[in-house]
Amino acid sequence: MGIEIERKFLLASDGWRGLGTPTRMRQGYLAADPVRTVRVRIEGDRAVITIKSKSTGASRGEWEYEIPVQDATELLDGLCEQPLVEKTRHRIAHAGHVWEVDEFCGDNAGLVVAEIELASEDEAFEKPDWIGVEVTGDKRYYNCSLIRQPYSQWPDKT
Amino acid sequence: MGIEIERKFLLASDGWRGLGTPTRMRQGYLAADPVRTVRVRIEGDRAVITIKSKSTGASRGEWEYEIPVQDATELLDGLCEQPLVEKTRHRIAHAGHVWEVDEFCGDNAGLVVAEIELASEDEAFEKPDWIGVEVTGDKRYYNCSLIRQPYSQWPDKT
Repeated sequence: MGIEIERKFLLASDGWRGLGTPTRMRQGYLAADPVRTVRVRIEGDRAVITIKSKSTGASRGEWEYEIPVQDATELLDGLCEQPLVEKTRHRIAHAGHVWEVDEFCGDNAGLVVAEIELASEDEAFEKPDWIGVEVTGDKRYYNCSLIRQPYSQWPDKT
Repeated sequence: MGIEIERKFLLASDGWRGLGTPTRMRQGYLAADPVRTVRVRIEGDRAVITIKSKSTGASRGEWEYEIPVQDATELLDGLCEQPLVEKTRHRIAHAGHVWEVDEFCGDNAGLVVAEIELASEDEAFEKPDWIGVEVTGDKRYYNCSLIRQPYSQWPDKT
């Protein structure tokens, strides 16, 4: 098991645009309940199945396995909960860390969030000036929540 | 995707005992709903994660990936629905097919079922005289049902 420690933020400006490398992602869930998630993701020319345990603070257990892209396509189209989550991830290096800015499409168009992966919950990091308020732990922003309550249906977008 | 075509039977007698090779299995579910199951299984010194679609007749889609036994142990003990399903599988060759006789333990002790995997729904096969009535499609006998309603709690055991 790996431990994923991740903090999530909204964006304060478009200052991140044009930085980093974009990768298209298409993902869906075979399980999306409060205790465990099983996610299938195609990321560029690679596919993975990822199991995550419930979050405690900014941390959760994670087990990930690479699978054939053909299998992932079958699972996403035929077996995962619909709709899928589609987004473009921009990986942006800044002051020794990598920020992942996710720009959502489809039913979640308009939503952009930035994540940073840390080695420990209290690891210090420097925020670029385009990083806004923190939303770590806000369940509305969980990718597995966005299939049931997409951003386009939120009554109060922040 | 593979297609799993499997028929399931009760046992008519103990005539199968002493035939074939026993393997201990310990398995649990990360998802166990009517549309899809995600199963983690340790079988001897090997572990797999197996995704299955809903059954149509005796058939269902199946995607299986080998994972480290250490990961499977973590998933079974920490993340899968409890209780787990534990059984000894006896693989018995008979007239060109392999019968898998599953003898359950724990909360499902007393339950024994035999399965045969076929290449097509209408493939002919010969039944040994220790094979009893068919229970293919009877949801009570699904392994993923046995975690929620174990055999020890069945009101009318057949």
